[in-house]
Amino acid sequence: MQSDVSDLETFLSDRTIDGYLIDADSETSNQRYLSGFDAPDPFVTLYADGVQLLVSSLEYGRAKRESNAETVSRYSDFDYRKKREKYDSTEANNRVVAAFLEKHGVQSVAVPARFPLSTADGLRDLDIDVTADTNDTITKLRATKTDEEIKNIRTAQRANEAAMSRAETLIREATVEAGTLHYDGEPLTSERVRREIEMELLRNDHALDETIVACGSDAADPHDRGSGPLKADESIIIDIFPRGKDSKYFADMTRTFVKGSPSETIREWYELTLAAQTAALDAIEPGVTGADVHDAVCDVYEDAGEPTLRSDERTKTGFIHSTGHGIGLDVHERPRIATNGETLEPGHVITIEPGLYDPAVGGVRIEDFGVVTEDGFENLVDYPKELIIE
Amino acid sequence: MQSDVSDLETFLSDRTIDGYLIDADSETSNQRYLSGFDAPDPFVTLYADGVQLLVSSLEYGRAKRESNAETVSRYSDFDYRKKREKYDSTEANNRVVAAFLEKHGVQSVAVPARFPLSTADGLRDLDIDVTADTNDTITKLRATKTDEEIKNIRTAQRANEAAMSRAETLIREATVEAGTLHYDGEPLTSERVRREIEMELLRNDHALDETIVACGSDAADPHDRGSGPLKADESIIIDIFPRGKDSKYFADMTRTFVKGSPSETIREWYELTLAAQTAALDAIEPGVTGADVHDAVCDVYEDAGEPTLRSDERTKTGFIHSTGHGIGLDVHERPRIATNGETLEPGHVITIEPGLYDPAVGGVRIEDFGVVTEDGFENLVDYPKELIIE
Repeated sequence: MQSDVSDLETFLSDRTIDGYLIDADSETSNQRYLSGFDAPDPFVTLYADGVQLLVSSLEYGRAKRESNAETVSRYSDFDYRKKREKYDSTEANNRVVAAFLEKHGVQSVAVPARFPLSTADGLRDLDIDVTADTNDTITKLRATKTDEEIKNIRTAQRANEAAMSRAETLIREATVEAGTLHYDGEPLTSERVRREIEMELLRNDHALDETIVACGSDAADPHDRGSGPLKADESIIIDIFPRGKDSKYFADMTRTFVKGSPSETIREWYELTLAAQTAALDAIEPGVTGADVHDAVCDVYEDAGEPTLRSDERTKTGFIHSTGHGIGLDVHERPRIATNGETLEPGHVITIEPGLYDPAVGGVRIEDFGVVTEDGFENLVDYPKELIIE
Repeated sequence: MQSDVSDLETFLSDRTIDGYLIDADSETSNQRYLSGFDAPDPFVTLYADGVQLLVSSLEYGRAKRESNAETVSRYSDFDYRKKREKYDSTEANNRVVAAFLEKHGVQSVAVPARFPLSTADGLRDLDIDVTADTNDTITKLRATKTDEEIKNIRTAQRANEAAMSRAETLIREATVEAGTLHYDGEPLTSERVRREIEMELLRNDHALDETIVACGSDAADPHDRGSGPLKADESIIIDIFPRGKDSKYFADMTRTFVKGSPSETIREWYELTLAAQTAALDAIEPGVTGADVHDAVCDVYEDAGEPTLRSDERTKTGFIHSTGHGIGLDVHERPRIATNGETLEPGHVITIEPGLYDPAVGGVRIEDFGVVTEDGFENLVDYPKELIIE
């Protein structure tokens, strides 16, 4: 593993904890990151004198070849079958994990906050000391990217730009009939644009489960994926966050388009959101916090009289989410660019995505992302920001 | 929710537990199933006098519209912000969950085995009784499918068959040059076939992260996705498990092909695996266990002199996995068709996928899946089984 795990070693030694334990499949990014192993079913990773794995027999050969592990053990190495004769599968499993820890001389472990309760309770019953790491130590390690990780993220963003361009082209080439966009003689829907985006991503070896192509009142709900025919003169938010099929790293970009003539409010919101984004981008440098960057956005919006969650915790219109988030193996990860955002450091990769929403108006969001550098910020997005598509 | 939750109510009343609590995002299928809600970030579902949700303000509107919930609460309803001034985010979060439980008159909860430890520890500190449900109550509810769920699975399988047909066509139309398959003037690789499979699935509104197109020694490792040029006269295992992009239900099918002339061993393995699969399919009916069905496969293989994990726990060749698994919102779910397989019931949807593996020979696997009926089994797969592609 190329990543710097010294913060993990410091965490363990400061607390005199013997090891760090993860029990998860590799969809859990902390597991993938620490183990360097991609497996569909849960397996166990211990960090103690390096990375030690416990996997099923089925995964044994691949784990030895492909993971970061110094050693790989199998359940059968600890008499799983015999234990199974005596105990139910949960208890047998927990006893194998305890034996695996004993083999590595580990009597106390820190575990991620979302570590499975039944494994923790089982290990505690077997006199292993288990502490939930609410400090998110592995998640924080992941926030600072290596050059190779940034390369993976850049690759994802190139695929993202090709997909956004495909979507924009569809809207540009669409005709307007009775207020609705048409393409190939039929209404152009959110679903159709989404499919074309995903086909383009797949051509470039990227994929995603969710893409937002939301128009009108759909666009006023930041998590609405959008559905049905796209309308002229209304805002269309397109938010694409593809993942490298092999690398598993994400990119994330949002643009807002109007086919035709936006309302005066949408025009104002777009300019205001551009200004809020610029204020945030300008604020980024090492030592500044994610909270400071979020405040820069709130300042711009509030100065213009728009509600934010900072000014009104319960508002349902205006700026109703945080400014951004870290991105990497997860689409949302550390650092937070929000009220509780931590200090930014070189190598952090973060999104900046201010937006305004109101079901009566629609929504506007503009999102770039990039890497915090020694003296500022490198925007990894190379895509224009133009509201109106003729 | 159409599903029958009476087993959940019995579970709670038998143990005099007030409610069932889930804290997870909807990628966790138990969460999606119980809440009926699709959200990318973790949220809280309580089952107590029906389904009660606790979500962020961002998800509030959508949760009210789209979920199964009787009531939807927000973190802000329980003074999250004030709690955050006094406590760290973990503690503030746990105190909101405790207040949400109190609102619903709940002092004791059962939680899934993989419930997050830090939430459990936090609730226990606040005098909530938290018990890990190692009985997998929700997972077991999910095993028995409604007609609507089976319809979703059938739809996924039609997409699967179109994708398999596309892969088979590529291999059929390939030419052989110096032992390697060629298509469009270049070597036909696992990667190319995989991409064509995924494009075909996407055209039919299905997707998947992993597809296996594994040839030769790659095919001898059941979890190897395969890479590089496909070879003539060697076995090619294609295992496709697509998921409905909207429904989120899976299908799962495997075929083994040889372009050209298979070795005598591969021919024998193919016939033996067909016989093992037939024995398993014939064994399925309500009241029979998944273990019985697995034994039917092991009997065929062992009678022919092939090693299995039943005859040798540590074997690395022969039949080195279980016979199958339930399938639904997860690609692997209850019931197990394995050593510890439970009793089959009408409405269970299960795969039957025997196979033989040896790095010196390659691999063979044949997988169908279907639904346990009142008097037997309905195979949901409509795809031929032919080893040799000319």
